[in-house]
Amino acid sequence: MKPGSFPPSAETLARFAAIAGQQYTISEEAEMVPYLREWRDRYQGRAALILRPGSVEDVSRILALASETGTAIVPQGGNTGLVGGQIPFESGNEVVLSLARLNRVRETDVIGHTLTVEAGMTLAQVQQEADAAGTLFPLSLASEGSCQIGGNLATNAGGMQVLSYGNARDLVLGLEVVLASGEVWNGLKTLRKDNTGYDLRDLFIGSEGTLGIITAAALKLFPRPRQRATLFAGLPDLDGVLRFLGLAKMKAGPALTLFELLPRIGLEFVLRHGQGVRDPLMEAHPWYVLAEISSLSEDGEAGAAMASIAESAFESGCISDAVIAATLAQREALLKLRELMSEMQKYEGGSIKHDISVPVARIPDFIREAGMAVERLVPGARPVPFGHAGDGNIHYNVSQPVGMDTDTFLAQWEEMADAVHGIVTRMHGSISAEHGIGRMKRDVLLQVKSPVEIELMRRIKSAFDPRGILNPGKML
Amino acid sequence: MKPGSFPPSAETLARFAAIAGQQYTISEEAEMVPYLREWRDRYQGRAALILRPGSVEDVSRILALASETGTAIVPQGGNTGLVGGQIPFESGNEVVLSLARLNRVRETDVIGHTLTVEAGMTLAQVQQEADAAGTLFPLSLASEGSCQIGGNLATNAGGMQVLSYGNARDLVLGLEVVLASGEVWNGLKTLRKDNTGYDLRDLFIGSEGTLGIITAAALKLFPRPRQRATLFAGLPDLDGVLRFLGLAKMKAGPALTLFELLPRIGLEFVLRHGQGVRDPLMEAHPWYVLAEISSLSEDGEAGAAMASIAESAFESGCISDAVIAATLAQREALLKLRELMSEMQKYEGGSIKHDISVPVARIPDFIREAGMAVERLVPGARPVPFGHAGDGNIHYNVSQPVGMDTDTFLAQWEEMADAVHGIVTRMHGSISAEHGIGRMKRDVLLQVKSPVEIELMRRIKSAFDPRGILNPGKML
Repeated sequence: MKPGSFPPSAETLARFAAIAGQQYTISEEAEMVPYLREWRDRYQGRAALILRPGSVEDVSRILALASETGTAIVPQGGNTGLVGGQIPFESGNEVVLSLARLNRVRETDVIGHTLTVEAGMTLAQVQQEADAAGTLFPLSLASEGSCQIGGNLATNAGGMQVLSYGNARDLVLGLEVVLASGEVWNGLKTLRKDNTGYDLRDLFIGSEGTLGIITAAALKLFPRPRQRATLFAGLPDLDGVLRFLGLAKMKAGPALTLFELLPRIGLEFVLRHGQGVRDPLMEAHPWYVLAEISSLSEDGEAGAAMASIAESAFESGCISDAVIAATLAQREALLKLRELMSEMQKYEGGSIKHDISVPVARIPDFIREAGMAVERLVPGARPVPFGHAGDGNIHYNVSQPVGMDTDTFLAQWEEMADAVHGIVTRMHGSISAEHGIGRMKRDVLLQVKSPVEIELMRRIKSAFDPRGILNPGKML
Repeated sequence: MKPGSFPPSAETLARFAAIAGQQYTISEEAEMVPYLREWRDRYQGRAALILRPGSVEDVSRILALASETGTAIVPQGGNTGLVGGQIPFESGNEVVLSLARLNRVRETDVIGHTLTVEAGMTLAQVQQEADAAGTLFPLSLASEGSCQIGGNLATNAGGMQVLSYGNARDLVLGLEVVLASGEVWNGLKTLRKDNTGYDLRDLFIGSEGTLGIITAAALKLFPRPRQRATLFAGLPDLDGVLRFLGLAKMKAGPALTLFELLPRIGLEFVLRHGQGVRDPLMEAHPWYVLAEISSLSEDGEAGAAMASIAESAFESGCISDAVIAATLAQREALLKLRELMSEMQKYEGGSIKHDISVPVARIPDFIREAGMAVERLVPGARPVPFGHAGDGNIHYNVSQPVGMDTDTFLAQWEEMADAVHGIVTRMHGSISAEHGIGRMKRDVLLQVKSPVEIELMRRIKSAFDPRGILNPGKML
């Protein structure tokens, strides 16, 4: 029988509880709730048990028992995922394995610039450890206070600074992983170079808990920027974004740590519903860019570079107006406009969201074509495309037409997603740039990937998890 | 029967030749020679045929036929590998598949900073294409004039600029790969973010042609530095290297594009045997560092940063003396000291070479412990540890004692390698930092990897290549 298709026996449950310890085993429905719902309430599952083991050895014993008994295991970090990968199904036959208690720092190497931590540390705690060592761990997400580093790696999290530092994958040197059998793969190396064998590390990263459970990671640390220059520019048209980005990249290179696109309508939503915000520019512009340059020196290098980029961009006509933050308070005010963009959309009624990426050069084409497709489907619907333009990653959110019934609008979700994903796929883009597949996009995956790729993924899955106990029904 | 254990039939050979075309099939022994020996003559094999197909479709048909007939295929790029991965065995039962004729540029995207090329382009050609687009492709190796990008990716090549730009793996966005079955996996995406499914790309990279044959790659391009500051410093002791590196990294970050360690004895060899070289410093120092900072601006930023780093390093006592190149000619002269280091060792008799890495903080310990082990084994042997200290990657070469018989010394290779690798493994390092496993280190791999990891690798190998036709007997 397939794991997850039958309830574990009372004896099996007792054995699981004995491994994690009674005080770290949750079997009361009411107490389980925080582990069974994601914060946007899109997915709500049930579970046979929640286990909160305190050591790698216990995780290992739990997986060995799960393999022996064919019990489905759903690994869970901070429960902040957006595609339901961390939530069990409704059957109640699965066991949720929380990594929260594995939250120690294993090693800080200030000379080699590495930090080895357990999976259950929150991203904010990891950032603090890096900071205490006089360095930077650059992964940064809205949920950093509660998401856990193990989950960040299992989903290859993105965020704001990918442009300069890369995705979560790029910030890892080594992993410790408990396999479906309960065996532990110790790949916790802190080496910058190692060409011995297949790259198992990157296979586990982004596999959403379907190939093994990450219990610890050796992370890269970076020098901490000492100065930043933050710019908010108004653009006359969408094509200017690419020219502006090209210019900024050629002049600043990896010092360009932020390059975010904002549409006028998004700024209007923020100005209308946000607290203590104002338009930094005198006139309205159809598009905006929020950019930042970070410098390791304190001698004004960042500001000078940003001023020179703004000047060139202004001269070549790709920006119409711009401000550069002169104080920390002004910087915060500019960043806030971007931070509020997603949240303020809810005051405008229903929003249909897409997390897509396209090759950077196709961003304007994508936004234009998707806009036309949306207008054909729901006349009057209001696209709010914003986000990490430097990575080609646009959060293509669409607010409902003014006055329309919200449920009627949201009923169009699938059809609109099909249209938008169709354009993305034609442009060789990705239908999930940051958030992963989980439960939400499992069917879409089969549509956008070639049969060859799906077959390779399935073979890997059965090579790593022959009984199918690890997060079954997610991703693949 | 296992592929490679029996000669292909005359009919099979004729079918292979018909796919590649007669003029692109080599069956005369004399003409085969360039494909059967590596340049240091350490490995010399034989082959049933050399095929030089001109299209992905033909590579696909060749692999389909190989799978059908159980013929072993040895993929080959520029034949510059150092561990014998690209050389067939002595049996003469294998077919060498050269990628040299797949050498077109598929696409240059100057806005998205990507370059899509076929596997057979030489690294130098790829660098030139990037340059023509006003950008940089930073992978740089001694063999760049003849090595091919497909081979660079199949072996995850390293080189001089890894410190700032990463290994070959870090420079790739997407791949096209022909699988053992002949099916083509089109993973040629140029996306900066894509979280849909398992990371097949990184599994093929570094797999040395044992999981599939890379036929094309989408590469990342970078802004081209406009100014460089190059420093050559003398250090009072080995521990100063780490302090100097820490200081340079914190002040320069990714602008630190070179940080190479050189021992006095290595410099002496270069000064003794090299043409047109001189010691840049007045006095002798036990250790030297060659460092470079690259800047995207032309306003002297790089020089100022380097001067400030040198000043701090001098004040804190981690360097004793230093020069910064004032002209391009001076820069070339400094770089030449590093470039000649490997070659000049041959004038000092036999050299036993190790390509290892350790966590950066362990470099001094490693050099000290390895030195003692070498002295115990061959009293008077002269270690010349040099290389990419910024990555923890030391080329641990040992020159024979003065006056010793070279063959007698080289007969100690295995025993010395065992001793050195033992220290590396104890320090959680890598016994092949850059060069890979190939034929040379296949036995060592089984000693240094855990049974769990070897088992996972074997499962992946049989999932991807069930008949075992792809480069059998290499790596695994």
